[in-house]
This record gives sequence, structure tokens and C-alpha cells, in this order.
Amino acid sequence: MAEAKKSRSATNKAEVAVLGASGYTGAELVRLLLRHPKIAIKGLTADRRAGQPMAAVFPQFAGFDLPKLVKIEELDAGAVDLVFCALPHGTTQVVIKDLLEKTPDLKVVDLSADFRISDPAAYEKWYGHAHQAVELQKQAVYGLVEIYRDEIKPARLVANPGCFTTTSILAVVPLIEAGAINPDEIVIDSKTGMTGAGRAAKEAMLFSEVSEGLHAYGVAHHRHMAELDQEFSLAAKRAVTATFTPHLAPMNRGIYATHYVRAEGKTTVEQMHRVLGDFYKAEPFVQVLPLGEVPQSRHTRGSNHVQIGVIADRIAGRAIVISTLDNLVKGASGQAVQNMNLMLGFSETTALDQIAMFP
Amino acid sequence: MAEAKKSRSATNKAEVAVLGASGYTGAELVRLLLRHPKIAIKGLTADRRAGQPMAAVFPQFAGFDLPKLVKIEELDAGAVDLVFCALPHGTTQVVIKDLLEKTPDLKVVDLSADFRISDPAAYEKWYGHAHQAVELQKQAVYGLVEIYRDEIKPARLVANPGCFTTTSILAVVPLIEAGAINPDEIVIDSKTGMTGAGRAAKEAMLFSEVSEGLHAYGVAHHRHMAELDQEFSLAAKRAVTATFTPHLAPMNRGIYATHYVRAEGKTTVEQMHRVLGDFYKAEPFVQVLPLGEVPQSRHTRGSNHVQIGVIADRIAGRAIVISTLDNLVKGASGQAVQNMNLMLGFSETTALDQIAMFP
Amino acid sequence: MAEAKKSRSATNKAEVAVLGASGYTGAELVRLLLRHPKIAIKGLTADRRAGQPMAAVFPQFAGFDLPKLVKIEELDAGAVDLVFCALPHGTTQVVIKDLLEKTPDLKVVDLSADFRISDPAAYEKWYGHAHQAVELQKQAVYGLVEIYRDEIKPARLVANPGCFTTTSILAVVPLIEAGAINPDEIVIDSKTGMTGAGRAAKEAMLFSEVSEGLHAYGVAHHRHMAELDQEFSLAAKRAVTATFTPHLAPMNRGIYATHYVRAEGKTTVEQMHRVLGDFYKAEPFVQVLPLGEVPQSRHTRGSNHVQIGVIADRIAGRAIVISTLDNLVKGASGQAVQNMNLMLGFSETTALDQIAMFP
Amino acid sequence: MAEAKKSRSATNKAEVAVLGASGYTGAELVRLLLRHPKIAIKGLTADRRAGQPMAAVFPQFAGFDLPKLVKIEELDAGAVDLVFCALPHGTTQVVIKDLLEKTPDLKVVDLSADFRISDPAAYEKWYGHAHQAVELQKQAVYGLVEIYRDEIKPARLVANPGCFTTTSILAVVPLIEAGAINPDEIVIDSKTGMTGAGRAAKEAMLFSEVSEGLHAYGVAHHRHMAELDQEFSLAAKRAVTATFTPHLAPMNRGIYATHYVRAEGKTTVEQMHRVLGDFYKAEPFVQVLPLGEVPQSRHTRGSNHVQIGVIADRIAGRAIVISTLDNLVKGASGQAVQNMNLMLGFSETTALDQIAMFP
Repeated sequence: MAEAKKSRSATNKAEVAVLGASGYTGAELVRLLLRHPKIAIKGLTADRRAGQPMAAVFPQFAGFDLPKLVKIEELDAGAVDLVFCALPHGTTQVVIKDLLEKTPDLKVVDLSADFRISDPAAYEKWYGHAHQAVELQKQAVYGLVEIYRDEIKPARLVANPGCFTTTSILAVVPLIEAGAINPDEIVIDSKTGMTGAGRAAKEAMLFSEVSEGLHAYGVAHHRHMAELDQEFSLAAKRAVTATFTPHLAPMNRGIYATHYVRAEGKTTVEQMHRVLGDFYKAEPFVQVLPLGEVPQSRHTRGSNHVQIGVIADRIAGRAIVISTLDNLVKGASGQAVQNMNLMLGFSETTALDQIAMFP
Repeated sequence: MAEAKKSRSATNKAEVAVLGASGYTGAELVRLLLRHPKIAIKGLTADRRAGQPMAAVFPQFAGFDLPKLVKIEELDAGAVDLVFCALPHGTTQVVIKDLLEKTPDLKVVDLSADFRISDPAAYEKWYGHAHQAVELQKQAVYGLVEIYRDEIKPARLVANPGCFTTTSILAVVPLIEAGAINPDEIVIDSKTGMTGAGRAAKEAMLFSEVSEGLHAYGVAHHRHMAELDQEFSLAAKRAVTATFTPHLAPMNRGIYATHYVRAEGKTTVEQMHRVLGDFYKAEPFVQVLPLGEVPQSRHTRGSNHVQIGVIADRIAGRAIVISTLDNLVKGASGQAVQNMNLMLGFSETTALDQIAMFP
Repeated sequence: MAEAKKSRSATNKAEVAVLGASGYTGAELVRLLLRHPKIAIKGLTADRRAGQPMAAVFPQFAGFDLPKLVKIEELDAGAVDLVFCALPHGTTQVVIKDLLEKTPDLKVVDLSADFRISDPAAYEKWYGHAHQAVELQKQAVYGLVEIYRDEIKPARLVANPGCFTTTSILAVVPLIEAGAINPDEIVIDSKTGMTGAGRAAKEAMLFSEVSEGLHAYGVAHHRHMAELDQEFSLAAKRAVTATFTPHLAPMNRGIYATHYVRAEGKTTVEQMHRVLGDFYKAEPFVQVLPLGEVPQSRHTRGSNHVQIGVIADRIAGRAIVISTLDNLVKGASGQAVQNMNLMLGFSETTALDQIAMFP
Repeated sequence: MAEAKKSRSATNKAEVAVLGASGYTGAELVRLLLRHPKIAIKGLTADRRAGQPMAAVFPQFAGFDLPKLVKIEELDAGAVDLVFCALPHGTTQVVIKDLLEKTPDLKVVDLSADFRISDPAAYEKWYGHAHQAVELQKQAVYGLVEIYRDEIKPARLVANPGCFTTTSILAVVPLIEAGAINPDEIVIDSKTGMTGAGRAAKEAMLFSEVSEGLHAYGVAHHRHMAELDQEFSLAAKRAVTATFTPHLAPMNRGIYATHYVRAEGKTTVEQMHRVLGDFYKAEPFVQVLPLGEVPQSRHTRGSNHVQIGVIADRIAGRAIVISTLDNLVKGASGQAVQNMNLMLGFSETTALDQIAMFP
């Protein structure tokens, strides 16, 4: 380890590992990190595929110099500066607890849901079991950069937000905080592409099951509600609950969230639009479109960008706020790299400058 | 004409024509009518493709015996019993007015929007011009069979409802009528497949523009709102207005409408579910799923069926009602054939017994 | 059993069962058979889903009166006239052997590959194990109706051909038999939709793995080659071998086979076209397009139709013969019903009159 | 102009313009060039959209600093170092002739077909009219970098190859040149995504026309054959002609070409594989997979990479060579930037380091 850290200073690059590199968010992390001028990928884990080259699991990496896939226990976490954890919910908390006990100066960006819910009771309610690393849970910072930038910089454990929640928090939290909308009257109709469901072999995710059609799922009980409740309530400074319905659409990438909101008092739609425009005016990754313009998910594909549109409803006092992003980038791995950039002291946008690929 | 009608009684088949047979709803009418044991297709019009065989425009009809495409003025409307009008909005009203003046005993099922709005002022507001066949507009019956079956049977002009409106009226009108939901608090988030946009060559409808992504359109001003307002208000017996946002999804067929409703008084979700179950219990084409079950658009593809699901929201007093159908069948041509069956005295389900094609 | 057969004569319907009803070919059989006026579905098996209603596995059947799914051993084969076997390759031969031993007067249409290869040595070579029902294998008739109609009628065991092989045999065998093409110079580039891969939960078949891209598979060793060799050699009256490469395309249904052939002697492309036109002129399901016209897979979707196009290459003496069909209909379940119609003495086209659904 | 060139040396960036920026190859050029550290985009033309910002035509560029769209005649070509010409075939030759007459030191990368065919008679035969800039045609260099790198560097006019031809030349030309395959026996079955058809509003390119199906087009007369003939004949040092059939697949990006080749003399498949491996071993964008491995189009999506697989056919002396690339990148705009890098003296891979985006 000492030697590893020496070599690090030699190359002048920070060294990272990706746990769970055989899933889609893992591959997306590698895609982004390979183009990062200040990062070297030193470890990739994938239990079932251990021993194989990354190109056997994701052939687009043929020709790139990447470490072989190993099991987590084979990883020398002490030799890296930061670990991205792209493991399934539930098992992650134990893995990270172990890692941080053995290597206290390690930094972690966790892409699972395990450290997103700061209230242990809420966690237990939504995930069905007591949290197994409650002390760490308290330390974890919710990694939605545009809201918690200052807290993220010094953190050693950042909980990368969910894809649905990133999309909706960015659209709604500034409006709640500004008192522009009624926090008890929010209806969120969200649509996601298939990569949001991950790479596990399930009948319900086969091409022939999900192409050429659309359906809602997790209606009234999707776990991302726990995050929405937490962040909306923090913004409102009291407990608030939104209606949230996710849908699965026949496309690979993209979340498209349509928010039905109601003005607080006499707030106009122009004022709502201005609140969002002001909030994001210095943000590199969030674009608030001109009032009345409607975004499309495909125009953020492959990029870390978010597009937000505000449209007046024909019913007075109501507005439709639409936000969209790529669930694998700003909704997962791009935001994780953005968090890493802050945690390691790099420029926040490094390696995140890809422009959306349309068509 | 006299001779034609004689031959008709000889074959014991009613004779129909399709105006606008080169569009998707035209093709779908032909697909259904070719399997109708009591119907003979005697005329097909398509201005730009006049002179060509139908199989040149839709190669799936190669091998079937169909009349050549002709211009509308070449059609002998007197020789047929019923005309399906699948022409663009706006021009239709003049065409139908002419047809009915020349052939008063002709029956017409109009798939355009021209005769759906019974109030001339509302029509003018939404469509931007005065209606040019106001007398006929008064006679036209709104062809949503499950609501207006008795009025449709004797009608000579039936206005086939829009695809979005069929989907939402079936889900919501029984609840309004029963006083189960608050008609001022309805939010409709609807998603449609691409065939809903028709076959006109527009950049915005190219494969590469609309695949792999999702977007809202017509936000706060889509014309189907005029129909929703009319029918919801009739059900509520006072003027009501809903929030309605249509989205375009990368699939060919299917409308998937997610309705966010609020209970009137102490109505429970179980009661809402029972209202719908009772309303449709004898209907051959509408299935109300068990409480809590979520339908998928693909399970109605190609059929005249509608599936409706009712799910309790986690917020007390709110429910999510989801309805889905194939926009080209129950949302257009299937419903048109259903109307024709009633108008000509056939069994309502004739030629509409196809089962959804999944996958 | 005796009683069952009595009731049968009462309803005047033949009774059938589908083994393996939870897969795509099983669902497609049910879709077609539910509309067959002379058939009653008396049994549906699905081992893992036994006890569930069919609508739990395929929600498009909600509202239809169908028997519950049972395990194979629960099925009373003696009570039905014919069994469709839509089980995986390999296990099928034992299941059918048992069934026919117990119920010698049962008729079977087998959709697996188990009885397609009449030469036990060839079977063993391609499938890696000795055939376990060699006596039955000798009796089995290869169920490609347009070639073996007369042999199918009296058969008790029909081996329904593979989807790739049906597509290519229909395009090529008449040309070989007529001596119009050189049987040693056939190159077949075939493309299939995803339903051809079945409903098993495999990572490689997930939406995100197979959408938005294309690839060959089974290159130079796909098992359908065994069937092609058998049927091409029978047509040529000597052993012939073709080059065959299957590809997976991001669509649900359809096989599209492009055949590169060379004239035998001075045969012209016009003569090739005439050979095919003559061969199929009385066939209800095969359409030979005018010389030079190119078919599209989508125009056969959902129907039992095959479209064949013949185009002259710019290189003298070479031609491109393209055939296309729906792999779940004429490539599997439609052809199985066609076989059943012949075996039970019904009109061959009964319940197969659906027109292709496009778009 | 003088002033412009001065400012250029000030910023140390070369300045370029894109003619035809409202099409897909135009957008892809902008996507790549915006990330090029040594290039400034100084002009964008689009006749029908002149006056609009680029983000109105391609919303993914919202937030980027780009010149407004102008008409070609408004462009100050003297103020830029190099022009990318992404205009339709036929009109391009006159536009470029004018540009080069007015600005002789301008460099041009032309993405149309106008300067790809060096023989005026062949051009006239395939394009139906005499070439209108024959002198320029003689100077134009065929911009397939891996074959003509040395000729491209000093060129002032480079004809960027077609997407199909790039895919097939890279797979086949080294084999012909090495005498490894018989150049008279090449059969190419190629499949392309929809972006290859461009952004023109045509009925045949609508989502509902081309999704969920596959078809061949331009069979035996596609114009890319002119390029294939030219380059294959140059490699063979005599006139050779291949069979070539393009197909349209329901995906946005990707060309997947399956080449059926026959060994010359006793050449083995291992030797063919070695020929290709040796030819590309130092190439940054071409990966020859291990013998027997089959590439997938999706693994090159969005990147400038080409993947080539070589598989032995089961028939002795035959092989299947598969090559795949992204038609908008290596098949068009990526290759154009690669050409530009060579022409302007930059490192060849600058701004082309994106990794394929899968899923």
C-alpha cells in the first residue's frame, strides 16, 4: 500500500476502484473514468465474472488497458484513494463498513440506496430490515451536488442519489424552498428507460417483454419515495409527502419526470420559472429552458446534463414542471464522478464534458 | 345505385367505403373489415395515391381482393350503406356535408375530430375556425359506445372519439357520474405510441427523432382537451376542467393514461374500484383488473380491448386509475367498426374478436 | 377418456392441449386456437407456473375462458385428440414417447427440434446426444405443409419445422428441385426478431443488451443447419451444404432471409421467378412478389403469410431471393395450427386468416 | 479575412465551418468538434433554418456557445481554415468548386458522394449526370485514413467515404491486396441503422414505417457499389465486382456488414485473420477480434472504432468476415474529423477518444 501510494504521487493521478463493474452503472463509470486525466482505474470487481477481462463483459472496452475483474476480497482497497460502490442494495452497507474499518482514509461514493436515507427508522420501513452500519449512515452525505456541494467536498462517504430522485429533486426542491409551490400538492409522473432496471437476467426485462409497450410499476410503494420524502421535507422544513408513479418506457436511457404542481398563494408561473432559472444559473449541468419550452429525454442522452421546462397549465394556479436526464449519467455514474471530483479536489466538470448524443 | 343496392341484398352483405384509406386508421379499418362476415368493402379513397392498388400503399394486403384507390369525387357514395371517414381534421366536415346532401340515407362514421364537439363555440375556440356544417354537428352522436350505445344505434352520423379521450373517458366518467371523485382535481398524464401521430411525412416523426427517448407535447393546449371537457362536464353536470398532458413514447401502438384522482367525501378506493367494475361488468371490451393490479399497454395491442387498473395512492383519499388500449383499434378503427356494427344492426363484437398480440 | 371423447362429439369440437403454454409459441398457439371454431382448448401445461391462470402469465388472456396451467403429469392426454408440444429441445422426445405409449391414438404436433432430423446420426452430431425415441423419429413427418402436405394428413406425429428453416426452405427448395440454381453455391444471410430466442431469462436477451444494435450468432454452427442440409439434400437428390448465418435484430417478430444464389446453366432470373410463382400459385399463405420487388418483414407480422421476392444481381448468373415471415406464426405456432388442420381434417386455413398487423 | 486569420494565430486554434449543420452528420461533427482542443467552430450553415440558433435544430446544444445558422452565401469561407461539407449529393460539387475558386487555400472535407468516384464515366453512370467539377474530382483524395493516410495529409480536398463502403473496405481490401481471398467471389450482406438515411422528412423513414421490422433496399443498384468497385479493383489491380445488399434495421446507429469470402488457393482462415491483424495492429481505431469471435454493432456506438471478426465457415475454403462501426462516427463525421486532423497536422486521434456508449 505504501508503495502504491508512492507510485500514485509519481503519476500524479488519483487511483480508484469500481466495485460491481459488470453492471451498467459500473460500465458507465469506466467509460467516464477512462477519459479522466487525473484518475487511474486500479481495480474492478465482479464476483461472478472474476478472472475475466472487462472486455469479456463489455466488449466496447476491447483495446483499453484495464485491470482484470476480481472478487471484492481480492481487491487491495488500501492501494486506492477512492472506491465507487455499484453493488446491489442491502449487501453494500456491510461491504463499505468493512472497507472503511480496514482503510479509514479511503473515500467512498456509493451508488446503492444503502446510505441515502439518514433516518434509520425510515430506512427500516422502506427496506424491510434494520440498517447494519448506522454509525456510517450518520456520516454519509447525500450526494446531490447542486444541493449539497459544500457538504460533499470534505465527505468520506457520499451516498449517490437515485435516478428518479435526482430528476425530481432538481425540479422541485428549489420551488419548495422558495415557497413557490404547495408541497402537499405535488404529483410526479415519471418515466424511465430500461437500464434503470439493471443487468440482472429477469423475464420481466427481456426485450420481448418490454419493447413496444409501456407500464407503471411500483405504484404507491417504489422505494425512491423514501428519498423524495426526505429531501422534500427538508426543503419544506416539515414532513411532506408527494404522489409518485414510475413507468417503464421502451428505451435504454433517460428519465422523464412530469411534475404537476400548484402555486403557493399568488405565485405566478413566471415566478416559478425565475426561481429555477436563478437557482441553476451558475450550474454547469442544469439547463432551465425558456418558459413554455418542453424538453425531450433524448437530448441529454450520454451526457451529465439535466434539462428542465416550466409550462403553465390551462388551470389557473397550476404548472407542469418537466425535468429529464440520462439515468446512467447524471442519474448514476456521471453524478458519482461529479461527487468524486469534489471529494478529491478536482474541477467539478472534469471528464463530464461529453455532449448528449442525439440521434 | 339502385342496382348496387340490389346486388347487396343478393350477397346479404352491407357495403362500405373508407375515405382516407392510405393512413394508418384507414389500413386498420381494412384489416378489421376484411374479416367481417357481413361487410363488403366497395370503395377506398386516397387522393395522392389514387389509381394504385391498396397493396402498393400497404403491402400486407397483397393477395386480398380490394378495390383500387380512387379520389373522393370518383366514389359512388350512393352505392354504399356506410362510409368511414378517416380524413384530416377540418376538411372532413365539408366532405361529409356534401356526401349527406347527395345521399341522405347514407350512414357515416367519422374518425376525425370534426363532429366530436357539440358546442360550436367550443369547436371554434379549439380549432380556430367556425364550423362549416353546424346543422350536422347537432345531429352527430359522440361514438363512445360504452357511454352512448343507445344513441349510436339509430344515428346516421357518428363522431368516433379521439384516442386519448376514449382512454380517459372510460376510466374517469363512471367515477364522476357516481360522485366518487372530485371532478375538479383530475390530473391525466397520458402516453401514446407513434401511430397516433399519423402517417404524414414530418421530420419530428422520423425514427431517429422519436426512438430512444420520450417527451411531452401539446402541454396545456392539446385539442383532445375539448372532448375531455365536454364529456367530463356532462358527467359532472357542471363545467369541469382537467389537467391533461400527452407524451410521445417510442412504440407503435398503445395509449397508457395514468389518472391521479381524489375521492369525493369519504369514498374509498375499494368503492371507486367497485364503481368501475359494476359499470363495465357486461361490457365485452373493457376489463377492470383486480384492485391494485397495474395494466400494461402491450396486452391490448391489436385488440379492441381496454384494461383498467385502480391503485390506492399512499396518500389518503387519492387514487391512481390507469387505463390502456390500442390507439388504432379501440382508440380509432376498432371503435369505428363497433359503432358501425350498432348502426347497421349487427352484433356489436363482430370482427372485433382478435386477441391482443403479445409479444 | 371415453366420456371425454363422447362430450367431444357432442360439442362437435376437437379437443387439444398445449404443453409448454408459458412460452411465446405457447401463447401464440392459444391466441390462434381461441379463434378456431372447431377446437376446444382442454389443457395447458407449464411446470413452473402450474396452478396459475393463463392470464397471470400472459395478461392479454384476461377475460377468456381457459383451463388453469398444470404440470405435464397432471394432464389427461387421453381426453384430448391432439397435443401441441412447445417444450424445450431434448426433453421433448421422452415426453412425447411416453404420451404416445399411453395414448396411441393421440396426435402430436411437436414444435421442438426433436423430431425434425430423420437421420439419427445427424441428430446426434448436431444435438450432442443419441436420440431417445428413434422409432418415433422414423414415423415423424416434417411438417412443412407446402412441401409435405400429403404426408402430413395421415401422420400422428408431425415435427413442426424451425423458423429459419421454414423461411429458407420455402425460398430455395423449389429452385433446387427445378434444377434452376446450383445447390453448392447457396449463401443464406438470415435475420430474426427477439421472440425467436424464447422467454427464458438470459442476460443476453435483456432489452438493454439487444436493442439499438445487431449481431450475428451461431455463425457456422447454428443447429437449424441440420434441417437445411436435410431438406436441401432431399431436393437436390444428393448431399448439399449451404452457408448460413443467423443475425439477431432489435424487433419482436419476423425472420428476413436473404439468399444469394447462382443460376444452374443458363437459367435466367425470370425463370427462377417463374419456378417460385408456379410452385406457390395455389398456396393460400405464400405470396411471390413481382420480379424485382423487395419484401419487408413487417408486412407479415402476426399473420401466417410468407412473402418472397426475387431480384437479379448486377453480376450475371446470380440472384437474390428474399423470403420473410413471422417467426411465431408461419415460423412456429401458425404452421403448427396449419398442420393440425390437416391432421384433423379441417380446412387448412381455419383460424389462420388474420391479416398482418402493420404498423 | 486577414484579420480573422490573425485572431486565429492568437487563439492558436484552427477555424472551421460546417456546411449543412442541420442534418445528422452536421450535428455529429459539432458534437465532436466542440471537444476538440485545437478547433474553433466559426460557421454553421443550414439553408432552411438560417437565422436560428443551432439549439433550435438540435436541443442537445443548448448552453453551448455556437454561431447561428446562416445560409451558405452568408458564410465567409475566407475566414476559416477548413470546411466540412455535409450537403446532399449532386449540389455539393458546385458549392465546393465555387468555394475553392474564391478561397484557393481553403481545405475541404466533403461528406457527400460527389468526389468519391475518381472516374468521371463511372460517376456519370451511377449518378445519372456528368460531373460538374471534373478538375477537382481528379485532385480529390479518397479519405479512408487506414488506406490512404499519406495521400490525405497534404490534400486540400478529401472525399470522406460512404458508411457502407468504409465498413466493407476495411474488412476486405487488406485480404484482396494480400491475395488471401478470391475477389470475384465476395458477397456482402450489410445492415444499417436509420440515421444512415438522413433527416429528410420521408414517409418511408417514419418511426411506424421502420420500427419492428427489417428490409433490404437498393438491391443490386445501391450507389455505394461504385465506391466498392473502385476500391476493390484498385486492391485487386483489375476490375472486380462484388455482390452487395444493404438492409435497413430498426436502430439509430450502426452498420453491420457480413462478408462471405472464399480463400484464394490454399489460404487458411487463420491466415486471413493474420492478414487483418497485421494490417491493423498499429491502428488506433480498428480492432481485429480473436479468430472466431463475433462483433456486435452496439459496442462501437458513438465511437470512431471499428470491430472486425473472422469466422471459418463450415464449408472448407470459405470464411465469414464481419465488420461493424457507427455510421455517424467512423462512417461519416468521426472519419471526417480524423481526416481533418491529418490535413491540419494534428494528432490523428484528437477529439476522437470517446468510448462506445453501451448500453
